[in-house]
Parts: sequence; structure tokens; C-alpha cells
Amino acid sequence: MNNFVFQNPTKLIFGKGTIATLATEIPADKKILMTYGGGSIKANGVYDQVKEALKNHSVTEFAGIEPNPTYETLIKAVEIVKEQKIDFLLAVGGGSVIDGTKFIAAAVVYNGDPWDLLIDQNKITDALPLASVLTLPATGSEMNGNAVISKKATHEKLAFGSIKANPVFSILDPEVTYSLPKRQVANGIVDTFVHVCEQYLTYPSQAMVQDRFAEGILSTLTELGEKVIADNTNYDLMSNFMYSATLALNGFIAMGVPQDWATHSIGHELTAFHGLDHAVTLAIVQPSLWRVMREEKKAKLLQYGERVWNITTGSDDEKVEAAIAKTENFYRSVGIKTKLSEYGIGSESINSIVERFEQRGWKLGENGTITPDKVREILNGCL
Amino acid sequence: MNNFVFQNPTKLIFGKGTIATLATEIPADKKILMTYGGGSIKANGVYDQVKEALKNHSVTEFAGIEPNPTYETLIKAVEIVKEQKIDFLLAVGGGSVIDGTKFIAAAVVYNGDPWDLLIDQNKITDALPLASVLTLPATGSEMNGNAVISKKATHEKLAFGSIKANPVFSILDPEVTYSLPKRQVANGIVDTFVHVCEQYLTYPSQAMVQDRFAEGILSTLTELGEKVIADNTNYDLMSNFMYSATLALNGFIAMGVPQDWATHSIGHELTAFHGLDHAVTLAIVQPSLWRVMREEKKAKLLQYGERVWNITTGSDDEKVEAAIAKTENFYRSVGIKTKLSEYGIGSESINSIVERFEQRGWKLGENGTITPDKVREILNGCL
Repeated sequence: MNNFVFQNPTKLIFGKGTIATLATEIPADKKILMTYGGGSIKANGVYDQVKEALKNHSVTEFAGIEPNPTYETLIKAVEIVKEQKIDFLLAVGGGSVIDGTKFIAAAVVYNGDPWDLLIDQNKITDALPLASVLTLPATGSEMNGNAVISKKATHEKLAFGSIKANPVFSILDPEVTYSLPKRQVANGIVDTFVHVCEQYLTYPSQAMVQDRFAEGILSTLTELGEKVIADNTNYDLMSNFMYSATLALNGFIAMGVPQDWATHSIGHELTAFHGLDHAVTLAIVQPSLWRVMREEKKAKLLQYGERVWNITTGSDDEKVEAAIAKTENFYRSVGIKTKLSEYGIGSESINSIVERFEQRGWKLGENGTITPDKVREILNGCL
Repeated sequence: MNNFVFQNPTKLIFGKGTIATLATEIPADKKILMTYGGGSIKANGVYDQVKEALKNHSVTEFAGIEPNPTYETLIKAVEIVKEQKIDFLLAVGGGSVIDGTKFIAAAVVYNGDPWDLLIDQNKITDALPLASVLTLPATGSEMNGNAVISKKATHEKLAFGSIKANPVFSILDPEVTYSLPKRQVANGIVDTFVHVCEQYLTYPSQAMVQDRFAEGILSTLTELGEKVIADNTNYDLMSNFMYSATLALNGFIAMGVPQDWATHSIGHELTAFHGLDHAVTLAIVQPSLWRVMREEKKAKLLQYGERVWNITTGSDDEKVEAAIAKTENFYRSVGIKTKLSEYGIGSESINSIVERFEQRGWKLGENGTITPDKVREILNGCL
């Protein structure tokens, strides 16, 4: 097990009817900025629940935080917070709204160009307190200090991570997910699954408990995936899905283990070039990446195949291929296709993507062995 | 899944050589009280490492916190803290030293009789910051806000739990456990195993991930138990053991699930009457309790048997008995006997113990169905 430091101070408030606790969780004297996105919270009743809970608080609203939240939008909220002397931020929405609100929280108290915070996260030394009411299980943003922010003007997309940006608390009521479109539920399942794999499917690191925890989330997702797609108004299933998404990226399974994240890096480029949903890119890239990197990942692929998919017969190569095929079938079982051609995409962007990695000089993967040539091989396997 | 609230702000600093981080983790201007027990930290080098790390800090020492820490001892430390205007407590030791230091931290800032804090934990509204260097994996005190304190004068033993008493940080260097006697290692393994079971082996509660996490810790302990007893200087094994002990009682596996704790309640009485080690009482009581409560616990006993012990054949009754027998064998494999008679104890205390539960009017177990009559039946099964 590698040395590690873990800390996650976010208070998790989980279950039916918990949005009402906002009334007491936020001190009565706070001036709140309530942030949200495109208005789905008005259609599904979450907006009304939040407003009812905060009827005795001072609440200003800031709507319109977009998917892939932009600096240009968020900086408007920063101005409002400063003008109105707001001292508490409440994000109501999915990962984009929460990410955006983290940036607002850090930018408000920073003396300088807020974009600096994305170039050097060490500049985040303080932040306004923020909390969240989660409506879409997927990114884990509700229980970590990470955010990804885009700048339209320069076509940049950068991330930061700081414990100062952890929500003080996050409210997770599985009932609010009942109205989600199936596509978002399917994306959330795949997103969560791949988040876990990025922290697990690397090489053996003598982290026995962490491996078991990761496998526990993966097994849970494989058990509930199809059922959730068939009926996302089943409380028990949605609870376990929502809980899995939070635990996939709150640091619990990251302690003392190597991490990969190459599937994410390559997937981001497919989103940039073709506009594919983030989760879709993961479902396309990951199986090919595992096939290309199968020798380096062999021990973990075998362990994963045995413990998550009960694959115990055949040669090692057969078991590895069976584990990858089971994974592809799982993504397909929730309605996510796993090949570029199924989305009408050919090899047209491969050269450009490989060039980007060449220019950046990045070596991806847990061993830093995924060179631009390997990226090409992986992308060819995605066709 | 039941509704729940989870928060654990303790920073976990884990790995080789991490005691040196004390130098920077504790602000330079803090006046520290370093608390410890009977002096084993002087024999194993931990004392020297701590003093070296804190050579530029102001450090007062308070030695002699006993196993089952007493109010009478701790209140002396409270006086020292007040007199010397100490503003940071550092516990160096196992669960007793950390528990005791939590009491000191809460008592120092409380205006009133500190024993009040054990009668009503809601009176703990503040505490001095405290941190720990853990030397004995077992109780999980390093990453929770719980403490058990005894008062010699009145023969009382009471517990509190408050997030104010969570260590700010805890340092876990597995190398410091190399010098532990085998008996303490064995006790720690059984202690950890039963802590997990008290939060897991109840009834199905649709907590899919929490079940998997609990089973993950149990499987890890069954894999490493005998190996650790054979050689407790293996870094990888001791890391996983130490990590398991912390995760068994830091709230990770407690979210949204029913809990039992009857094995602990009955075991405490065996310690009180016969002076048996805490872990020994758990290994004696649990198998008998499971046999007596097998119908209520059947679904979970079957799940446990299948997932942790791979028991898949036979009738349900046979599988349940096999799961219990495997558990007993596991305790015995690390050197802990599982019957009272093996410690030279007969039925002499059973009436007195049952009477105590009758007087208290306690109904134990996750369903409140372990009546004094059931306690008698359980104890008869321990002979």
C-alpha cells in the first residue's frame, strides 16, 4: 500500500425528505446564493422543496449554470455575491452546477484574476462556504473539492481540486432522481463504473481493502444497472446507485492506490471533436484501452474478472478477454454503445487527437506508458 | 437503505515515516500536551520519533493513561492543560490513550463537572483540538469521536460520541506495530472483525454497497489473519490490518444500515465478571449469539457465508451452521479460544449477568429482541 493522506470533511445527508433539513443546516443569519442550471429543478419539484425549506432565509437565485460550466457565466455570479454581500452558496443540481459553484466560492475571496485558480490550484487558500442539493448521480462533485471549468473565450477547459472547495454538506434524496431521463441515468451508471475502474484497474498494490471496496461498487452497479434503466423510480435501487456515484469519487477507494485516468483523458478529446456525451466516450475508450494495455493490467484484469464477473475458467488470455467483453456487454445493457462507428464516427479525428497528446508531451496511465502511439492504437480499437 | 447523516473530518496520514509530519501538521505556535500510556512507546522507538518531529514545538508530557482510562487519571491532565494554557493535545498510543485524550479535550473547555459529558454527550459543544499517533490497530478511535471512560470511585464505565472529539488528524505508520505482542495483534483482528459484524450481520436493508464494503473488510481479515500472527513485521499485511481496523469503526460501513452491538454488550459483562480481554469475550459470545438468533439473522448469515466463506452447498440450516463454524475456526486460527470453559470459566456468573440486563430493562440487538432470557440462552451456549 502506498503512503497516503485522506481527508473529506463534507457532511452527507442522505435519504427521503432530507431537503427540508436545509432550514436548519444553513445558519439563519446567512445570506444565500442559490445556484442552479437550466430549470429542470422547477419541473421536478426540487426548486419548490428548497424554497420551502429556506422560506425564513435570505435567498438570491442565480440560474443558468450550463453543462460544462463556463467562466463567463460564473464570473457574473461572483459579482452578485460581492455586491450583495452573500456569505453562503447553495448549489442545486448535478455536477456542473456544483463544480461551477465551487469556482464561485473560491473566486469570491481571491484577490486577483480568478482564472489563476484553475492554472494553479495552490492559490485556493480560502472559499465561501458552499453546500449542495444533488439532483443527478454521476460526477461525485457533491463530496469532493474538484471542479472542471471552461473558458469560452479561449476554448480552455481546466480543473482544480482543493479541500477548501468541498461542500460543507450535501443533501442526497434519491427520490429527486425519479424524473431523470434514461439517458442521464445510463450515463451516470457508466460514469460511476469508470470512475471506480480508473482507481482500481491498474496493477496490484497490496491494497486489499481498497480493492474489495472498488469491486463492491462495481458489483453493485452490475447488479442494479439494467433494473435502474427499466425503472428509475425504485427507491432502493436509486439509493444504491446514488450512493455508489458519491463513493466512486469521494476519496474512499483512492487511498494508497495507483490511478490511471487515461480513459478520461482520451475520452475528453472525443467529446471535444465529436460532441459525444462524456460517459459515452468512456464506454468506447475503456475496452479498447484495456485490450491495448492488457499485459500491464493483466493481474488486475484477472482479479476483476474473477471477483466482479465470476470468470474462473479458461487461459489467462481468455479470462482477460472475457472480462473486457463482460464490461462492454454491461455498458450495452444500460443502453450505451461502445464503438465509434455506432455513433457514425470514423477515423477522421484520430490523427488530430494523437497530435494533441504529442504536443502536450503527456504520458498517460498508471505507469506513464500510454504514449501517443498507444493512444492511436487505442483509438483504432474504438472504431 | 435507511436515511442517514455521515461526517468524518479526521485527516488520515498513513504510511511509512509519517510520524515526521507532526513537525508541520501541528502549527508551530501550539503548546502541546503529549499523552501516552505505560511507556511501550519508549521501547518501540515511537516516543523518540515523536519528540524528534516536535523538537521545535513546546511539548509537555502526560504519561500513565491506563487501559480502560479512568476519570481520576484524566482529570489530572485537565488541570495541567488549564494551568499551562496548553492548546493542542497529541495522543500517542492505542485506543485507551486516544479515548482518554478525547475526554481531556472536551473536559478542558467545559464549565461544569466533566463527568456530565459522559452522562449527556450533548453537553460536548466544543473541545481542544487533538490529534493522534496510533500504535495499536483495534478500536478505530483514531478516526471517530467516540470514547469510553471509567470512574474508579463509582465503578462506572460510560461512553460518549461527538464529532467535536474527532482527532484533527491521525498518523498511522504500520511499522510501529511490528513490536506488538501477538496477543494484542490477535485481539485487534478479532475486535475489528466483530466491529464490522455488529454493523453488518443483522437483516437485509437494501444497502448493497455497505454490505460489500463490510464483506470486503471481513474477507481481508480472513485472508491476512493467520499470516499476521505468523509474522507481524510484514509491511503489506500490517498496512492492510491497520487500515481495516480504522475503517471498521469510522462510519464508512455504518451509513444507512441497522446495527446490533449485542455481542459487545454481553461481552462487556464477561470482562467485568472474569477479567477476560475484550476481544476474547467477543469471540466467545458472537458464535453463540448467532446460533440463538439464527432465524432473525438467517438471510444475512447466508449472505455472509456465501460471500466471505464461499459456502454454497447444503440446506440453509447447514449453510448457517457452516458460516458460524468458519467464524469460530477463524478466531481460533489467530489464537483466540471461543468457549468459556477453555478459560476455566463455568456458569457461575450467568445468573448475575442476566439479572443485570433485567434490571436495566435493556432489549438488545438490531430488532430489540434479545431479552434477558435470550442472554441466558446465549451465555449457556458459550460454556
